[in-house]
Amino acid sequence: MDKAALYHRPESEFAYLYSDEIAHIRLQTKKDDVKAVDVLAGDVYLHHEGKWYQSGIPMTKVGATETHDFWQASVTIPTRRLAYGFKVYGHDGEDVFYCDRGVYHGDDLVMLEQVNAYFRLPYFHERDMMKTPEWVKHTVWYQIFPERFANGNPANDPEGVLAWNHEDHPRHDAFYGGDLQGIIDHLDYLQDLGITGLYLTPIFKAHTNHKYDTTDYMTIDPAFGNATILKNLVDQAHERGMKVMLDAVFNHIGYYAPQWQDVLANQEDSIYRDWFHIRKFPVQPFEPVNYTDPDALTAARQGLTYHTFAFEPHMPKFNTANPEVHDYLLKVATHYIEAFDIDGWRLDVANEVDHQFWKDFFRACTGLKEDFYIIGEIWHSSQKFLEGDEFHAVMNYAMTDQIKDFFFGNPIDERPLSSGRMRASMTRQRMLYRDQVNQVQFNLLDSHDTDRVLHRAKGDKQKVKAALTFMMMLEGTPCIYYGTEVGLDGGHDPDCRRVMIWDEAAQDKDMLAFTKDLIQLRKQYSDLITYGEFHWRLDDLADVANHRVLSFEKIDQDWRMLAIFNQGSEIIAEQFDESTNIVSSNLANFEENRLTVAPGGWAICIDRRA
Amino acid sequence: MDKAALYHRPESEFAYLYSDEIAHIRLQTKKDDVKAVDVLAGDVYLHHEGKWYQSGIPMTKVGATETHDFWQASVTIPTRRLAYGFKVYGHDGEDVFYCDRGVYHGDDLVMLEQVNAYFRLPYFHERDMMKTPEWVKHTVWYQIFPERFANGNPANDPEGVLAWNHEDHPRHDAFYGGDLQGIIDHLDYLQDLGITGLYLTPIFKAHTNHKYDTTDYMTIDPAFGNATILKNLVDQAHERGMKVMLDAVFNHIGYYAPQWQDVLANQEDSIYRDWFHIRKFPVQPFEPVNYTDPDALTAARQGLTYHTFAFEPHMPKFNTANPEVHDYLLKVATHYIEAFDIDGWRLDVANEVDHQFWKDFFRACTGLKEDFYIIGEIWHSSQKFLEGDEFHAVMNYAMTDQIKDFFFGNPIDERPLSSGRMRASMTRQRMLYRDQVNQVQFNLLDSHDTDRVLHRAKGDKQKVKAALTFMMMLEGTPCIYYGTEVGLDGGHDPDCRRVMIWDEAAQDKDMLAFTKDLIQLRKQYSDLITYGEFHWRLDDLADVANHRVLSFEKIDQDWRMLAIFNQGSEIIAEQFDESTNIVSSNLANFEENRLTVAPGGWAICIDRRA
Repeated sequence: MDKAALYHRPESEFAYLYSDEIAHIRLQTKKDDVKAVDVLAGDVYLHHEGKWYQSGIPMTKVGATETHDFWQASVTIPTRRLAYGFKVYGHDGEDVFYCDRGVYHGDDLVMLEQVNAYFRLPYFHERDMMKTPEWVKHTVWYQIFPERFANGNPANDPEGVLAWNHEDHPRHDAFYGGDLQGIIDHLDYLQDLGITGLYLTPIFKAHTNHKYDTTDYMTIDPAFGNATILKNLVDQAHERGMKVMLDAVFNHIGYYAPQWQDVLANQEDSIYRDWFHIRKFPVQPFEPVNYTDPDALTAARQGLTYHTFAFEPHMPKFNTANPEVHDYLLKVATHYIEAFDIDGWRLDVANEVDHQFWKDFFRACTGLKEDFYIIGEIWHSSQKFLEGDEFHAVMNYAMTDQIKDFFFGNPIDERPLSSGRMRASMTRQRMLYRDQVNQVQFNLLDSHDTDRVLHRAKGDKQKVKAALTFMMMLEGTPCIYYGTEVGLDGGHDPDCRRVMIWDEAAQDKDMLAFTKDLIQLRKQYSDLITYGEFHWRLDDLADVANHRVLSFEKIDQDWRMLAIFNQGSEIIAEQFDESTNIVSSNLANFEENRLTVAPGGWAICIDRRA
Repeated sequence: MDKAALYHRPESEFAYLYSDEIAHIRLQTKKDDVKAVDVLAGDVYLHHEGKWYQSGIPMTKVGATETHDFWQASVTIPTRRLAYGFKVYGHDGEDVFYCDRGVYHGDDLVMLEQVNAYFRLPYFHERDMMKTPEWVKHTVWYQIFPERFANGNPANDPEGVLAWNHEDHPRHDAFYGGDLQGIIDHLDYLQDLGITGLYLTPIFKAHTNHKYDTTDYMTIDPAFGNATILKNLVDQAHERGMKVMLDAVFNHIGYYAPQWQDVLANQEDSIYRDWFHIRKFPVQPFEPVNYTDPDALTAARQGLTYHTFAFEPHMPKFNTANPEVHDYLLKVATHYIEAFDIDGWRLDVANEVDHQFWKDFFRACTGLKEDFYIIGEIWHSSQKFLEGDEFHAVMNYAMTDQIKDFFFGNPIDERPLSSGRMRASMTRQRMLYRDQVNQVQFNLLDSHDTDRVLHRAKGDKQKVKAALTFMMMLEGTPCIYYGTEVGLDGGHDPDCRRVMIWDEAAQDKDMLAFTKDLIQLRKQYSDLITYGEFHWRLDDLADVANHRVLSFEKIDQDWRMLAIFNQGSEIIAEQFDESTNIVSSNLANFEENRLTVAPGGWAICIDRRA
C-alpha cells in the first residue's frame, strides 16, 4: 500500500457536518491501491467502558482522479462528539491504521488503544455547519450585462449611444443604451424561457459601460434607471418566481468616486487616505497608457503610486481592514437587501479581499435574510472561502473549464481533454468542497469575462448543445449567459458583450427551443440532479472512440438517470434490459432495447426505479 | 516519482503569510523520492507581458516523517498577489508540474502557460496573517493549581481543610487551603526560579477543589481570595516581569450555578433554557453515580437529559450559539483584561466550543490588548483553530507526548519511541502549523490532567532532567507544572494534584538547582531557540544504540547550538574540529576535542559562529 498517498484533514471538506446529525468523512488513497476502508468511530469519553469505538463503518469509493481514489462515509453519533480513525485494507494484503498520529501497522497497532491518537470532530455544532439555500438547487440563472440586454427607456441613454446591432464587435468604450427597464420589459420572455434567477453585472453609478468602476454605490447608474425601477424589477421578478442577484464590487472603487478624488486633491491630508492601499505620496493622477506599447505599459505599472485591481489605474483598491471602509461597504450590502429585497450578491474579485471582511459580510447578509445566496468570483481552488462563514459557492470556472476543454479542446493548443482526465478533474474539483457546497456551485460555460461558448466551440452548435446539456445535468446551479439561447456569438471581452438579439428573424429559433426544453428538464429533475448519487460509468464505453465518451448515472430513491455523451469518432451502442425513457438526445437511436449514440450525440435516459 | 504523495493546500499552513511581505510555501512529497523542488511564482496580472512567473525559487527540505518529506520556501512579491506552482524533480529522473489543476508532465506541460492553473495566495492581507505575541517566545511558564500551591491565608480555608502533606494521595474531594495570597507570598521564590509566566487553573467561584465547575464567573472563589487579592497578584507579578494567564471554562458551567439551578427549578419556563443543550424536558437533577459500577454508570450516561462536558452531570454544556450566552461569556473574558490586566486566557475543553464563538472571543480579547495570548486545551490536531483568528496556540500535548514516549516509553505497553519515529512525529506536528504558531506553542510535559512527569518516568530523575532539557531547547513556550522543580511526584488525577513541597528538608535541592539553571539557559538563548533554523542530525549517531539517540542543531546568524541526547545503551562519541562551549550536560565528557555522551546523558553545545 502506498501509505504516503493517504490524506485526511480534520474539520475541513474531509470531515464536516452535512446535517446537524450527520458528519461526512472522506479519505484520499492512491488510485487502485486500496480495496476497502472502514471508519472506526466513537466518543472518547466512553473509553473507560471497554471498546468505545464502533468496530467499522465501511466507506464508499466516491470518485477517482488520475492519482487518487476518494472514499466517503456518513457517520452519526448521539453524543455529538466524534473521534475516528481509518482501517485501510490494501490490495497487497497489508492493512494499516491511519489516525491523527500517523500511519500504524503490525506491532504499532497498540495505537488503536490510544484515544488521543484519533482524529476528532470534537462536537457537532450546527452553528459551524455550512448551510446553503435550498432554492438555489432548483434555480436556473440568466446572467445579464445590463448595458447590452435591452434598451427599455431611450430617454436615459448616455451620450453617443450606438445603434442596437448584435453583429457589432463592440469597442471597449461603446454604449448601446441597455437599462433596467429593458430587463423588466423582457421578464415575460425570460419566464417563458424558464429562467428562475437573474444575475446582473453591476448597476451602480460608474463611468464605464461595465460599471466595475463604481463611483457611487448608493445610486443606480442614471443610464440604467433609478431606485424605483430597480424595486420594480425585483418585485416583478419575485412575482414570477425569479430571484435576483446583484454584483458587489468591493475589492476596489472607481477612479472618479469622490473618496478617491479627495485623495488626489488632498493627498496625505485626505480623510480617505486610509481607505486605500497607497504605495507612496504624492499619489499620481491617472494618465492614459498605450496598452499596445509593452514598454510604456510596464513603466506605467511600475510607477503606480497605489494598489489597484490588476494594474488598472482607474480601479484603486479598497483597504477593507479599515473600519470605516468595512462599515461603509456593509451598509451598501445590507441596504440592497433591506430596501430592495434582493436574493443574492455576486462578489467581484472576491479572492483579493480579506477573509475577516467576508466573514462580517456573510453574517450581515444572512442575518437579514436567512436564505440569502453569496458567491465569489474565484477562478481557483477556494476551500478557505467555502467553510460555511464566507460564501456559499464560487463562480465555478475551475470546474466548468473542464467541460469546455472536453467538448471544445483546451484554449492553448486546442487538444480536447480525454474522458479519463475529465472524470479525474471533475472528481478533484468536487472533493475540494463539502457536498452542500457542490450542490449550489454556480456553474457557467461563459460570462462577460470569457469568450462566448459559441465562439469557444468555433460556431459548432451541436457541441454547444452537448456542453450545455452536460452542465445542466450536474449538481450545482446552472447559469446561461444572455443571448446564448438565441445564438449570440462573440470572442473575448469586449466582444462577448454584444447587444442581445431581439430581432426575431435573427434569433436562432432552434437554439431557443432547445434551451427552453433543457431548462424545463433540469428543473423537473433538480432533486435527482442535486441529491442523487453520482457515479461515472467506467465500462467499455469509456474506452472506445479515443477516450472521448462520458457517461454517468444519478440515482435517488425514485429515479435513475443515465447520461451518455459521445465526442468520439465512432458510434457507440448499449443494450438495455427493457425500454427506457429518453428525455434528451441528439444523434441517438433506440430500437429493440438497443441504444446507439453517434459521434457528437448524446442521450439522457430517466426511468422510475422499480 | 510517487505523484500520489504530492500534497499542497492553498491558504493553509502550506501557504501563509509569515510577515506582511513574506509568504511561506510548503510542499509534501514522498520520503526520499524527490531530489529538488522549485516554486514558480508571479503575479498573473502580468501574464500579458511574456513570462510572468519567476523561473524558480528553490525549496528547502525542512523535515521528514516516516512517509513524507516536507519542503519550504519563502516567497515575496511587490504587487502582493501571488500565483505559484511547483516544478518537482524526482530521483528517478521524472519531473512534473504540480499546480491547482493537478499534476502534469510531458506533453501536458502546456498547463504551465494556463494562468488559471496555478495555486493562489490572492493578496497579501496583513489582517489575515497569524500574529503571535513576541513576549511569549521568551517566557518560561509555571502552572499552578491554586488549591494545592500555598496557603497564604488560613482565614479563608474551606471547611474540613486537611493538613498540608505532600505525601498524601489526595482524594477527589479533598481541600488543602491553597489560595491566591499563597501565590503572592511565593512570587520571590518563582522569580528566583526564573519563571516569567504564571498559568493558574480556574480561580472563579465553584464547588470543587479544581474549580472547573464554575458557579459565578465574576467572583473569585472565596477560599482563594477576592478581586483585590487577584489585582495584587497580577500587579506584583507584572512588577517582577511575569505575565499572568487565567483559565476560562466556557464549554460548560457548574451544576450549582444559578443559571442551571433556574433550569432545574423552572424547566421549560426557565429564562435560561436556551443557554444549554437540553435533550429532553423535564431535566432530571443529578443523582450521585457509583463510578465503579459500569452498568450503573452506563445507565446514568444514557439517561442524561442534557448535554454535559464528557458525561459529568455536574457540568452542563453551554449553548455558545445563543447570543445571550455569547455576550455573557465575552463580558467575562473582557472583564478580567480590563479590570485586572491579565495577559492570557487558557481555554478549557476549547475544541468542543464552536468556532464562531472563538472568533468573536479572539477579536474581543486582542482588541483590548494587542499582545494578549490565547491558548486552547486541545489534545489533537488543531489546524482549524490556529489560522490566526481563534487561538495563538494549543496546549501542545500532541507534540510533547512524543517526548515522553521517547524518554519514558509509551503509556500502553511501555515501549520507548525510536529516534526515527520521534523525529517523524515531531516533524508531522510542526508541519501542521504555521511557523509563527510553532514559536508560541504551549509545551508541557505534565499538568493537572496527566501523570506527573516524575511518575511517568517511574521516579527516574535523570530521565526527567533529560526530557525537560530537550523540551526547553525546542521552539514553543515551555511550562513547568508546579513542584516539578522540587521533585513533587504523583500519578493521574487526583494524585497529580498533591500539595506543593515547602518544607525545605523535603525539597529535592538538586532538582531545584538544575531547573533554575535550565530556565536561565532557555531564556538566554530564546532568540536562537525560537528563530534559529532547526535540523535533525541524521548522521551515524542516529543509528547507534538501538535508535535511541536524538541530536539536532539550531542555527541563527550569531549562534550554533548542537544538542545530543543519548537514551541508548552505548556510549556515543563525536569528534570536534575545535573546542566547544558545553552549556548543559549530563554523563558527558569533552577531551581533546572529543565529546562522549554516556547512556542516559546529554550535551548541549552553543558556540558563536565565526
